[in-house]
Amino acid sequence: MQYDSVLVRYSGEIGIKSKRTARGLLRALVASIKARLRRFGVGFSGVRVRWGRVVIRSSEARRAAEVASKVFGVVSTSPAVSMEADLRTITERALEYAKGLIKPSTSFAVRSRRAGRHPFTSKDVAERVGSAILQAFGGAGVFVDLDSPDAEIFVEVRDDSAYVFHEFFKGLGGLPLGTQGRVVCLISGGLDSSVACYLAMRRGCVPVFVYLDNDPYAAEDTLTRAMDVAKRLCGYAVGHRVRIYVVPHGHVLTRLIEACDRRLTCVLCHRAMLRVAEEIARLEGADAVVTGECIGEQASQTLRNIRVESTALREFPVIRPLAGMDKTEIVRMAKRIGTYEISTRPATCCSVPPKRPAIRADLSEVLEAEENVDVASLVKWDVENARVIRIGA
Amino acid sequence: MQYDSVLVRYSGEIGIKSKRTARGLLRALVASIKARLRRFGVGFSGVRVRWGRVVIRSSEARRAAEVASKVFGVVSTSPAVSMEADLRTITERALEYAKGLIKPSTSFAVRSRRAGRHPFTSKDVAERVGSAILQAFGGAGVFVDLDSPDAEIFVEVRDDSAYVFHEFFKGLGGLPLGTQGRVVCLISGGLDSSVACYLAMRRGCVPVFVYLDNDPYAAEDTLTRAMDVAKRLCGYAVGHRVRIYVVPHGHVLTRLIEACDRRLTCVLCHRAMLRVAEEIARLEGADAVVTGECIGEQASQTLRNIRVESTALREFPVIRPLAGMDKTEIVRMAKRIGTYEISTRPATCCSVPPKRPAIRADLSEVLEAEENVDVASLVKWDVENARVIRIGA
Repeated sequence: MQYDSVLVRYSGEIGIKSKRTARGLLRALVASIKARLRRFGVGFSGVRVRWGRVVIRSSEARRAAEVASKVFGVVSTSPAVSMEADLRTITERALEYAKGLIKPSTSFAVRSRRAGRHPFTSKDVAERVGSAILQAFGGAGVFVDLDSPDAEIFVEVRDDSAYVFHEFFKGLGGLPLGTQGRVVCLISGGLDSSVACYLAMRRGCVPVFVYLDNDPYAAEDTLTRAMDVAKRLCGYAVGHRVRIYVVPHGHVLTRLIEACDRRLTCVLCHRAMLRVAEEIARLEGADAVVTGECIGEQASQTLRNIRVESTALREFPVIRPLAGMDKTEIVRMAKRIGTYEISTRPATCCSVPPKRPAIRADLSEVLEAEENVDVASLVKWDVENARVIRIGA
Repeated sequence: MQYDSVLVRYSGEIGIKSKRTARGLLRALVASIKARLRRFGVGFSGVRVRWGRVVIRSSEARRAAEVASKVFGVVSTSPAVSMEADLRTITERALEYAKGLIKPSTSFAVRSRRAGRHPFTSKDVAERVGSAILQAFGGAGVFVDLDSPDAEIFVEVRDDSAYVFHEFFKGLGGLPLGTQGRVVCLISGGLDSSVACYLAMRRGCVPVFVYLDNDPYAAEDTLTRAMDVAKRLCGYAVGHRVRIYVVPHGHVLTRLIEACDRRLTCVLCHRAMLRVAEEIARLEGADAVVTGECIGEQASQTLRNIRVESTALREFPVIRPLAGMDKTEIVRMAKRIGTYEISTRPATCCSVPPKRPAIRADLSEVLEAEENVDVASLVKWDVENARVIRIGA
């Protein structure tokens, strides 16, 4: 039987917003779905919001369901056959649908939902369709099992339309991209920053990527890796312009190594990075800086160091979506979102970490050390000399 | 067969730290395990670190395994039978163990690991034990299936000891409590702040709870709910002193309502709360403030509002472990950690939210509004009049 529609279920968080906010979120959701369908060359004749669902009309509905499931804000999608919301029509078409699905000597269940005014209940639908199937399969050993059926047939009746389906594609969840403003994402190409950026995007934020290039202390392969991660993440932002700032940062590192206690190199370098991010946030009209920091994961990520580093920012909050996650969870997520393969490529991020980095840095000591280097000028130079590359579309 | 030991597997993150750091983490892990066993009245004669495992010696090993699994830093535990690392002894005892486990006409597998110097390999162990079992069950239809056996028997040989086991209790993961310093956790008793606090604790941070009491705008039931959540969370901090600050905050709200644009009430109230948290962080020697904020989840949690609110803090970072999570994930976690039932009780947190709260607050407008109220004095009064209650032990 030929699918002609896709039912898109969206995040429950959208449904509980005020009407006005929900309308804005759904507009963004529909725009994201359309952009993604176009990008993947999937034809459609309409994408509309109807009674708590988004309905896509498409003659390639199965592929449309698959493509649309990878949009933030979508919980799941189902390719479906649509029909008039008339009990007789529903029974006939659902039976036809079931014939392609149910095998002899297996069990099935019909699940139905209904909203709107109709001369029948959802129970009527399930019973009528169920009986029709039993009758059609006659002696072929087909039977009803509501608890763990071999096949499930779903019927959704809404106002003047009804939909029959049985497949579900799991969605990404979250909120539609672009509904929560812009964030500057510091990415290294490694596992953590990539997953952190993904999570911020999933909550609706459009990323502005910033890569701090530690050349000559980092190899070219690190830049390539970061670019590849950024491109991969852009696959979740179809329809949005995304840019990456490639910032020359090696000279800052040189200056810090020359002028300051080596134990403080990492803390000072991170503080400078956050300032660069803040400058770019200001330029780009972003509202926050996203990092991949996770409490206690690395020597530089003790709570004390996070505290000392974060005071470098005055106007923007640092969002750390991984703060409470375990490494195993981060790795699992990286695999799921497709950045794992890229992030685990060998790459030299920084060849000059101190042998004994400060793990409980002292703020006053850090501020004193910064007096030996003109951080403000270094940061300014960094931002002015950044290459800005468009990667999204 | 009588268990006499528990094998405790700890987080892989601990293993990859420097020797010194790892030693500190393991010391904290052992202390946490001992404290929890004592709290639950489980007898034990020793808890020691041996070759990448913690081994508990106990005559109530099964219960010890269950209790120890709920310690941060533990990945899983297995009650086990210990013996000398001699191939003949292992074979005999493992066979005895298997007899209590394997049923006629079912499949089994023996999984073995070995570390140290022995005159046999781990493969020898598996083969010898496997053959002994096959022979013992003779014609009872018992067979080997390495892919999906009905029963699995594990043998771990380490230096002069060997352990046989088959059960696993899943642990909580994370890092041992107390190894990452202290954090001030703003808790309301609701779902989000409770889960956020749990996640910070799971990463090794000892919480100092702060509850802002909005009386007369909040009912007593809200305070009770917050206290109950705090107590529940303390169940994960056995052995640590935990305190909750109950801070009278209603008068601040009164002042804000009187003196400032009503649209800004929530933003101003949150800023004042963060300042109270900062004061208490200073008093308690904490390194960060933890909140349950999640991007876009509530009107007050737009990225812009998070930005405007966070500038209220000057010296401490705000850690938001839920920033990138969906509500469904937060709910799932609340159920798992046992706060869901408490947090979903009806309670009146605040009876005076504005009808149209600012969702894109403007920092300069906010700062101007704060000039009408002496925020510093209000915060000072709040902290001075807080009740400090000990809840952990």
